[in-house]
Parts: sequence; structure tokens; C-alpha cells
Amino acid sequence: MCTSLLLKDLSGSVYAGRTLELPVELPYLVAFLPKGTKLSSKAGNHAPLNYDCKYDVFGIVVPNGSADDLKVVEGLNDAGLNFSLLAFSETHGPDDTFAADVPVLSAIDLGAWMLARFSTVAEVKAALEEQSVLVDPLAALGGVVPPFHYTVHDKTGASIVIEFFNGERHVFDNPTGVMTNSPRFDWHLTNLNNYTHLSNVDHSNATFLGQDFIQPDSGIATVTLPSSDTAVDRFVRAVYYANFSEKTDGQEATIRQLGHVMNKFDRPKGASVYSSAKASALTKSAGDLTGQSGGAPPEFITEYTSWITLIDLARGAVFVRTYNSLGYAKFDLATLKEQASTPKIIPLEALGQHAFDADGLMAAH
Amino acid sequence: MCTSLLLKDLSGSVYAGRTLELPVELPYLVAFLPKGTKLSSKAGNHAPLNYDCKYDVFGIVVPNGSADDLKVVEGLNDAGLNFSLLAFSETHGPDDTFAADVPVLSAIDLGAWMLARFSTVAEVKAALEEQSVLVDPLAALGGVVPPFHYTVHDKTGASIVIEFFNGERHVFDNPTGVMTNSPRFDWHLTNLNNYTHLSNVDHSNATFLGQDFIQPDSGIATVTLPSSDTAVDRFVRAVYYANFSEKTDGQEATIRQLGHVMNKFDRPKGASVYSSAKASALTKSAGDLTGQSGGAPPEFITEYTSWITLIDLARGAVFVRTYNSLGYAKFDLATLKEQASTPKIIPLEALGQHAFDADGLMAAH
Amino acid sequence: MCTSLLLKDLSGSVYAGRTLELPVELPYLVAFLPKGTKLSSKAGNHAPLNYDCKYDVFGIVVPNGSADDLKVVEGLNDAGLNFSLLAFSETHGPDDTFAADVPVLSAIDLGAWMLARFSTVAEVKAALEEQSVLVDPLAALGGVVPPFHYTVHDKTGASIVIEFFNGERHVFDNPTGVMTNSPRFDWHLTNLNNYTHLSNVDHSNATFLGQDFIQPDSGIATVTLPSSDTAVDRFVRAVYYANFSEKTDGQEATIRQLGHVMNKFDRPKGASVYSSAKASALTKSAGDLTGQSGGAPPEFITEYTSWITLIDLARGAVFVRTYNSLGYAKFDLATLKEQASTPKIIPLEALGQHAFDADGLMAAH
Amino acid sequence: MCTSLLLKDLSGSVYAGRTLELPVELPYLVAFLPKGTKLSSKAGNHAPLNYDCKYDVFGIVVPNGSADDLKVVEGLNDAGLNFSLLAFSETHGPDDTFAADVPVLSAIDLGAWMLARFSTVAEVKAALEEQSVLVDPLAALGGVVPPFHYTVHDKTGASIVIEFFNGERHVFDNPTGVMTNSPRFDWHLTNLNNYTHLSNVDHSNATFLGQDFIQPDSGIATVTLPSSDTAVDRFVRAVYYANFSEKTDGQEATIRQLGHVMNKFDRPKGASVYSSAKASALTKSAGDLTGQSGGAPPEFITEYTSWITLIDLARGAVFVRTYNSLGYAKFDLATLKEQASTPKIIPLEALGQHAFDADGLMAAH
Repeated sequence: MCTSLLLKDLSGSVYAGRTLELPVELPYLVAFLPKGTKLSSKAGNHAPLNYDCKYDVFGIVVPNGSADDLKVVEGLNDAGLNFSLLAFSETHGPDDTFAADVPVLSAIDLGAWMLARFSTVAEVKAALEEQSVLVDPLAALGGVVPPFHYTVHDKTGASIVIEFFNGERHVFDNPTGVMTNSPRFDWHLTNLNNYTHLSNVDHSNATFLGQDFIQPDSGIATVTLPSSDTAVDRFVRAVYYANFSEKTDGQEATIRQLGHVMNKFDRPKGASVYSSAKASALTKSAGDLTGQSGGAPPEFITEYTSWITLIDLARGAVFVRTYNSLGYAKFDLATLKEQASTPKIIPLEALGQHAFDADGLMAAH
Repeated sequence: MCTSLLLKDLSGSVYAGRTLELPVELPYLVAFLPKGTKLSSKAGNHAPLNYDCKYDVFGIVVPNGSADDLKVVEGLNDAGLNFSLLAFSETHGPDDTFAADVPVLSAIDLGAWMLARFSTVAEVKAALEEQSVLVDPLAALGGVVPPFHYTVHDKTGASIVIEFFNGERHVFDNPTGVMTNSPRFDWHLTNLNNYTHLSNVDHSNATFLGQDFIQPDSGIATVTLPSSDTAVDRFVRAVYYANFSEKTDGQEATIRQLGHVMNKFDRPKGASVYSSAKASALTKSAGDLTGQSGGAPPEFITEYTSWITLIDLARGAVFVRTYNSLGYAKFDLATLKEQASTPKIIPLEALGQHAFDADGLMAAH
Repeated sequence: MCTSLLLKDLSGSVYAGRTLELPVELPYLVAFLPKGTKLSSKAGNHAPLNYDCKYDVFGIVVPNGSADDLKVVEGLNDAGLNFSLLAFSETHGPDDTFAADVPVLSAIDLGAWMLARFSTVAEVKAALEEQSVLVDPLAALGGVVPPFHYTVHDKTGASIVIEFFNGERHVFDNPTGVMTNSPRFDWHLTNLNNYTHLSNVDHSNATFLGQDFIQPDSGIATVTLPSSDTAVDRFVRAVYYANFSEKTDGQEATIRQLGHVMNKFDRPKGASVYSSAKASALTKSAGDLTGQSGGAPPEFITEYTSWITLIDLARGAVFVRTYNSLGYAKFDLATLKEQASTPKIIPLEALGQHAFDADGLMAAH
Repeated sequence: MCTSLLLKDLSGSVYAGRTLELPVELPYLVAFLPKGTKLSSKAGNHAPLNYDCKYDVFGIVVPNGSADDLKVVEGLNDAGLNFSLLAFSETHGPDDTFAADVPVLSAIDLGAWMLARFSTVAEVKAALEEQSVLVDPLAALGGVVPPFHYTVHDKTGASIVIEFFNGERHVFDNPTGVMTNSPRFDWHLTNLNNYTHLSNVDHSNATFLGQDFIQPDSGIATVTLPSSDTAVDRFVRAVYYANFSEKTDGQEATIRQLGHVMNKFDRPKGASVYSSAKASALTKSAGDLTGQSGGAPPEFITEYTSWITLIDLARGAVFVRTYNSLGYAKFDLATLKEQASTPKIIPLEALGQHAFDADGLMAAH
């Protein structure tokens, strides 16, 4: 459902790419929350956890009922901390054993909390040791627990994955920077041991039984990449492309290179379909969230890439391409900060679609 | 090295996507040749074949020595005929048995000639019956024969592939509209019989040995897509995505959908590499063409997608994205015609890179 | 439906393995035809082609109506010529343009004729230049043309494939010694260019994104072998195993090694099934041939390996294992020759379930 | 390194197949230990665990220094309990926290102990709750811990896997009856969720882009079976063949069917090779065990199937085929029991090359 990965440029600067796939559009917003914005999280009957933004926070968010309660799906703060929420169907959090008066963070608010308060993965890990977190059922999801796991990167390239399964919270260091979806993160890491043969070098000549054979085209190196679009195969391909992608110099070239890499994970509508009877709680709730429910569902639904983000962690730049656009929109945290002293929120769909009209360029010659 | 395919929208209107991959940049130009432009082709010692443009012609071209001698790599005319030149390493044309005074078309000029003179694939096929064609060595390629085959589509969806191999010219009807590279076209068609199991429907539940298994993610349907980036596997994937891509309504939606499909064939630098000692004549000649020769070659070179075109055949619109851009530039033949009564030629690299600066949009809220 | 391949031992001596798969049992016989046995072939209304055995011939055969008209499926003569008939669905022979009085060989009798008359592949090729051959409809197949192609090896390792398609006879030199089924032989050879990456060396260590991964088991080398049991994938696997199989010394070790290789092509009942409505003419006719027709067919039928032969060409030894046996029966041409001066024919099923020297069984008939 | 699986016949009777692969031959013995035979296990400095055979035990064993100390690799008792030891490189047992005077079972003796004492998997599970077990370094392995896990089946089809990893003992119920090697068993079970698309039904017809394609051969169903010979891919294939194998009636037919299934896991020498520098402790120790050490090792070594067993659990029959044989030898526990009142041990290599009733051979020792 989502693919996320990190690229480093020649100077070691860190860039993050991620896609989001669902068979429906959620009411995504683009939000800028300047330093000082007050936020809150509430889980079960516990005291709310109130905090304000120590950092400027930019993100793609989904409103939970109102614009005052934003759930961060993808975000970046001006300290270079990058957060991504991805689907994780095995989610099964710990039982609520906390005292009522303990302020507890709802897992769905992990993104807002971490982007608001911390500058590095190390800070996040330390804070998580102290902070009570519950996977709280979400009314917007029809009362089921939010089926997500969470990955956090910082501008040094440090990366962790936070998962709730088997009734426990797990915080995994992520040496690869790659994350997709189910199953649990350490299963994926073990699975990479089945791909030690991967290399980007074409082997285009062979002699079998005394006869020479030649592959006339380039590209046979990728013959062993797994093909499916499930999380398992996407994880392996994400490692492959992140690892073998040609190193580039600076933001402009690296964002472009990252764009090409993420195109490998851009899923067109129709590429795979499944019975709408198997739609997840998340998908089913989307109709309610967007007011598009009603009518008989189609026999088959298709999961496609709603949007892709390309992020320069160190320089605070976020590029976004939606399914309905041929090009990327760029956001710059420093510019936003200059322009906005209060929270700014726009619908993602307001970005429109961008193709450069080049006829005039031609006529001018 | 190149992937080309056709999509139809809900009304049956035809769109063409193609990529071009090489390990080098050729000195690509974008050219508009209005009706009446005079062109010529010369093969061996034969009389030149002189002709003028019956149609407005737009294309991505490579100059053969001078801007007067343009070789069309990808083009469209205002009758909706679309031409693509793709690499074909088995090229071996017929012997020259034509009389010296017969005007002979050089195969490398097939694109210019067909776009200039014909409006449909049927017209092209009929004209080829009459026209002598030779695969003439090209000075710009160091004197080797141009290793290409040629695919032509029209706005009805008719499509042919022209190949020269085993010393003969072959014109194949192409019921799929898909073309890549070696081996010969009919081999690829036979190969599709090995993919009858392909379907875009996820099979996500199974019972093995009395135990139920569930794939929690969508996308297992593509598990049997072949993975390599050779022409053989790209052909199969192009058929898959062209066939299963969700049908869309009208130019705007279909060009976007085609963009997502073509992203599947966007090859990042580094994804596969090969020894520079195995570089083709085409690749080696590029250094001379672009004046970038000299110095020791790198140990490995990587083939990447220099550019992608998305074409609306019926409405005369061409969208181009280069490797160095995050977005597409759009050309409209009707607009170009209004603006230009003489040939217009600009370097492809003049298109620059396009990412929409969205900060202002946000600040305005 | 059938897989055939050659192994050479350390001294260069040639051994042939082949499987036969159908969803039914044909009334297979094991036949020994000593030198001097008179044979005949008749095609259409042409004069019969009469000939006698210049060599001792041993084979697995199917009677065409009577034991006087045996069609060789797999055979060996005492000069070390080995013949195999394999299914080939594209069979489409030349039109009958021969004069009525010309003796014409029916393609289905190619095996008997070649084993009876020739000692080397070179002799066979020369003789085929002179001999008229027709793909004659076979009453036993319900009047359809026998859908087969034919491969012939000799003890030097020379190998050819004879196919009738597109209305023409083709004789291909086979540098690999491997043959399976459709499509045409030269398509398979071209397909090997897509497998130049195959190697039997495990690559069990890799570093991706700075992290080391280790495959703890042996055997990752075969990760790129194609998996299906269609002729196309079996051809590639047969080349792989024939090429990489460890070289052995002498008949005993090499026949065992060949046995292990052929086990890779042993197809268990149920491994794949298809609708009985899609049964071939060959399969449908089997019911009539064996008197087992009648009753409603099952919904699905399964193709399985009826038998496997391992042949030492130079020493005239043939090992046979049927689906119903855990071991091989061995036949020795020299021993058979001593024991039999007239044709000897026994049902294949008489071999029972256990490996043993079967020459005596044959002599007793 | 090893593949094991269960088949059931039409009446639900249970049969077990297993292979053993190493790049070397160990000094395998075939052993029959009648009821009452006294056995012992010793781990560390703990009191020995002494016990006698409550059941007749038959097995393929390796002597640990002397014939008095046999380690069971594959075994069956006359209650229908079947034990298999398979390689497991992650083995990391619990620390020794047992009191010195507690009799502790060495993990390598699990097979002997379980076959001697128990009749069902349920009994084994209950007994393991009480019994202290340590993974004790083995002198014969150069002092490393024996890198194995253990699978136990009974004639009801109940099946467990016993693994020691992460410093803990794990007993997994095995609903599939399949086991291979690394990684841990529950990882394999999760991995089956990535194969829900597997089916044995050929999909041989498709229409792509309006054009019909037909696969002329049977067997395309297996196109998605994973190809490598690592434990991960063998596990999936073992589940596939165990699940889809045609059900048969009774011992004779089912043992044959199981033989065909196990042929799919018969690995020929040379099919994959790896650097001898990467040989495991187990492989390295084999030279010492067999007295074949000395001399420079070859550059590459190849793992092959030393032997295969086919076992009828309910009827006490064991069929064995070694790499050097074309057929199976059969052992019958009831017959052995009649013939032997004391332990009988013969070298596995004494079985020679042909299938036969081997009970007499054993009694003669």
C-alpha cells in the first residue's frame, strides 16, 4: 500500500521518497503548522497529552472529524525529521494498563507528536521509552484500531520503524531506510537474505553446451527482482533501487533521480484489482470520510498511487505529485515559515495538474 | 532500449507512449516542419528521393551532420500518424540490387518520409509496396548500418512494425500496438503464448494442506510479470499494462493514465549497468555526435530513460519528459501551426525542468 | 509433454535422457527388431516405401492398429543412433505434390526408417535430402496429422531436429542436444539469449545499503531458472542441467547422474491439471487405442511422466522407468541380439515395478 | 539441505518423504534397535539421561565416535512415530541453568529419545514440557553446537517442529507437515501468505489487447513456483506438491506417488556449487568422520541429495534410495522385528544400486 525509501547524494545528504496507495481518495490536506502551534492527543479515557510545536511542521494530513484534529500521514519538520505512516494490517497493540490520569499518546498521533517535539531519531527513541502509547480505536475507521506502522528518518540517515503487534510495541532500528507494509519489519529484513544474488551488473554472455549465447539488450540484471506489488516484493525492489541508484550531486539532481526511482513504485489504476468485498476497514471508511458512500460498490476495486512525496530532509523541501498530475508541486519550509505565522491548510487536490506549455518556447526560436 | 505502446480511452481514441533508453545523450532536437517543407533521402549511389511535406510534422529528431538532415526518432503528423524508431540489433537489410537511377529511400529516413507523406497505416503499407528502401550505412554511426526497426500507428489504432533482418524487409501487422527491441517482432508475439496466465485479479486467499493463508496486501496479481529490463520482458509488461490499464475519459485523464503506465518503463541511472567495452556502435558514436568523446571510458555504463513521450494521435498533442525534468512539456500541433510557417527547431534540453512552486498557493490560504 | 537432453561423460561418451508426458497411457510396447526385419511406410496414395533393417533396432513403440505397424516413440539402433518423437502442436506439413508412383515416407515412420537404415546423424541428413516425406493423417488419431517433431542423436553427440511447420520441412542442427515441444526449435534457441545470466555458482553474500546479508543455505544459483512445466521453460531447464551436471566417469556413474537430472523432469500426477475439454486429439485418441473410452470424462486431467528412458548410445544400453515403478529396467542391445533372431515385442507394463535386467523377460516372449 | 513433507492417501493414511543434502557423504548407517535396547544421552556435566526403547526403532544414523553412540538423522518406530533431523544454521540454544544432578537430554539425541519412548506427537509434546534439553557442542563437529532442528510426525498426521534459537527452545505445531531449513519455522509459515496465487490449474488461454493467445502445452500452472534450491523456496514447493499431488489408494500406489514428488527435490551434483571456503562446520567435520580429509579442497563444492526416504508411518515400511542407486531398497519393521532380537546395524552404502527387499541383508549382519 505504501513504499518508502531513502537515497543519499554524493555528499551524504539524505532524501526520502514515499508513495501512498489505496483504492480510494481520502480527504488529504497539505498543512503547515508553525512553531508554537498547540496540539493534543487523547487515547481511551486517559488524560489528554497536550503539547506545542517546538519545530515548524509540514505534512500531508487527514482530518479526523475536524481540521483541529489532523492525523499526519507524511511529514517533515524544520529540524530535518521525516515521518511516514504506512498501512500495517497485523496491528495489535498492548492492552491498556495505564492509570487513568496518565496522559497517553494515541498511536495515530505519533507523527504529529514526533514532528512537533523532536529533531532526531535518537531523541524520538529516547522519548518513546518514557511515553505511554496506545493503539486506540478510531471513530473515523468505524471503531477499529488504526492499522498502521510508523517510520521515522532524520537527516543523518538514522531510521526506525515503530510497530504494534502481538500485543507489544516494537521499535526496530532500520539499517536500510526502506519500509513498506505487512508482515512485521524483521520478517522483511530476514527476507533480504533470499536476495543475496541481486546485482545491477548485466550478465549478457554465456556459453551453454559449447554454444555461445548473447543478450543483445541491456537490463538483464533485474531479472531476479520479484514482481508482485505486495509489500514483500516492493520492499526488496525498494532496497534494490535505493542501493543501486546512481549517486547524484545536490538537491536538484537527487530529487530528479529520486523521482525516477519512485516512478518504479507508481501504480496505475487497473494494474491490479481485487473484489470490493475484501476492502479493508480503512478503504470502507474512506467513503464516509469523503461523503462518497452510497450506491452499489463495483465488483472490483483497484489500488493506485494517490500521491508521491520526494523530500530533502536537510533543506526542508517537499515535492508532491498526485495521481491527477503530470508533475510535482514543490514546498519549501523556509519559504512557508516566512509567509505564515499561523497554521495553513489547503486541500491536496488544490495543487492541480502541471504540464508545461512549451509551444511558445518553440515559436520564439 | 525503447518501449512503445498504445492506450485507447473510453471513446476508442488512441494515445501512444514511448520511452527512449541509451547510456548516452544524443543531440536531440524538437522539430516542427510545416506542410510544404522540402525533404530528401539518399541511399548509396542512387538518385536521391526528394519529397515535400504533405502534412505538418512534429518530432524529436537527431541531426545527421547538419540541421538540414534530421533523422526522426519519434514523430507525429497532423493527420494523426505516429512514428517511432527503436533499436534493433539484428538489422540486416537486403542487398542493393536496385538500378542506380532509381530513387531509393534510406531506412533511417522512413520516419520523415512517412510522416511527411501519409495519413494512415494503410497508406504507408501500400506505399512501401512501391518504394525501394535500403538500410544504408550511416557516417554518423561510424559507417555501420543503422540498427533500428520502425513502428507506425494511426489514430484508428492500426499499427505495423517494419524490420530488416535475414537480408529481407518485413512489414508485420501489430495487433498489440506494443514494440520494444530485439529479437524480431514475430518472436515476441509467439512469446505472449507463454503468458496466458497473466491477469490483473489478485488471488489473495488459499488453502494449502488444510490451512488457510491470506495475502494481506493488494497487488499479488503482478507476481508473474517478468522482471528484467530486456526488450523481451518489457514487451510482455507493456502488453500487460496496456491491456489492464483502467480505461479513462478524454485527453486529460488518458494522458495522465498513460503517464503512470510509462512510469513503469522509466529506467533510473544505475538500475542496471554493463561494461563500457560492450557499448554498441550507436553508443560509441554518441560521443562524436555530441563532442563529448575523449578521456578513458568508465568501467560500467548505465542505460537510462532519456525521455518519454505521451501522444494524443487524434488531437495532435505531444507531451515530453526528459530525464532531467520532474514534469512534462506539452506541444500542440494546431498551436504550432498557427505560430510557425517555417521549420522550427529547438534543442530538447531547452525544455528545462519543471516543478510547480506551490508555496504561494499555500500562503494565499 | 516431453523433455529430451544429452549428457556426455568425462571421456566424451554420449548419453540421452527423455521423458514422455501425456494425461493418458498409450498401449506402449517394448520392441526389438533384429537386422533384416522388413518394414514399410505408406503415405496418402503413394507407392509404399519398403525397406529392411540394416541395424538392430530397439524401441518403445505404439501399434497403429496392429503389431505389424509399429510407430517408434523412442529408439536406439546398434550403431548408436538414437531417435525420439516428441509432441509438436504447430505441425503443418508440405502439400502433397509428389507423383503417385514415388515411394513416400510417412512422417510418423521417420523413427523406424532412420533407426533401420542409418548409423549417424550425417547419414540421416544426407538421406533426408533425397527422401520424400509427408505428414500423413493418422487414422489412429481420428484422421488428424500426427502432431510431432523428431530429434535424432548419434554417439558423436551430433543432433538434429526435424519439424514440419508453415507447410515446409525444416531440419535444424541442434548444438544443445535439448528438445522439448512447441514452439519451433529456432524460437527456443533464440530464447536462450534471455538466460545468459544463468550460472550454477551460488551468490550467497551481499551488502545492500551498508548492511550485510547472507543466504545460509546452498542452492540460490537456481533462483532464475524458469518454473513452469511448459515446453519453453523445460527447454531452458534442460539446457541448464545438461550443462552444469557434474561430469562423471563411465556408464554406471553417468546413467545414475542422468537419472538424477531426469528426475528434475519427472512430473507427478496432479502437479498441473487442465480441463478435459481441452484435451488434444492425441489424448482423445488414446481412449480408443486402449479401449478405455466411455463414461463421462473427468473435469480435469493431469499430464504426468508415463516413462523415462536413459540411454547409453555407444554401448547400446537402455534403462526404462515407468510411472508405476520405483526403479529402472535395463535392456542391452548386445544381449537382446544374442537372444533373439526374430522381432520380440512385450507390453511396457510387463516390466513391473522393480529394476532388473529385463533382457530375459523379452527373450521369453 | 533437507526437504521433508507428508502425503496422505485416499484413506487418510500418512506417508513421509524426506531428502538429505550435503556436499559430502557422512558415514551413514542403517540401524534397527529392538524394544528394550538401552540408550543414553549426556549433555555438559549433567547426569546422563538413561532410557531403554519402549518401541522398535529403525533409522538412518551417524555414529558419534563409536557404534554405541548413534545420532538419528531419520527414523521411525513401530508405533508410527517418524523423526527427522534437518540442518538449521540459526541454532542457538538456552544457557545451561540446570543443576548438575539433573539428567539433561542433548538436543542431538532428541530423535533416539523420542522414537524410543513415544508413540504420538501429543506424547512427545507433553514429555518435552518436563524434559530438560541442551544444545550441547559436539566433538564430532569440531566442538560447535549441532546446527539442527527436528520435526516429528505421527500416523494421525500430527506434526511438530522443535527449534532452538535466540537462546530459547520453541515447539511449533506444523499444520503443513512440511519442513526444510533456515530461517525459523514461523517465518516459513508467514511466507506462504505470499503464495496464495498458487493453483495447479493451467490458465492456457488469454485475450490481450483484442488478440487471442494460447499456450499449447500443459504445465503453465507451475509458472509461479519459486525456483531456487534454498530452504525458503523448497518449503513453498514442498507445500505445493504435497497439496496438489493426486491422491492415491494404498501403500504401493502412494509410495510411488511420493517417489515422484520427492524426485522434484532430488538435487543432482553440479546443479549448484559454492566456494569450499564457505563450507559449514558440518561439512568440514565430515572429512574427519569419514577419514577422507587431507589434500587441498576443491575450489567449488556441490550439495546433492545423498539419500531419500519414503515412509509409510502406519505400516512401518521405509524405502531408501541413495545417490548411487537407480532404485529404492525397502525395509519393513515387522519383518526386521521377526528377524532380529538384538540391534542390527549396516552401512548405508551396503544397499548397493538396485531396489530390493533389504530386510534380509540387515538380518545377515
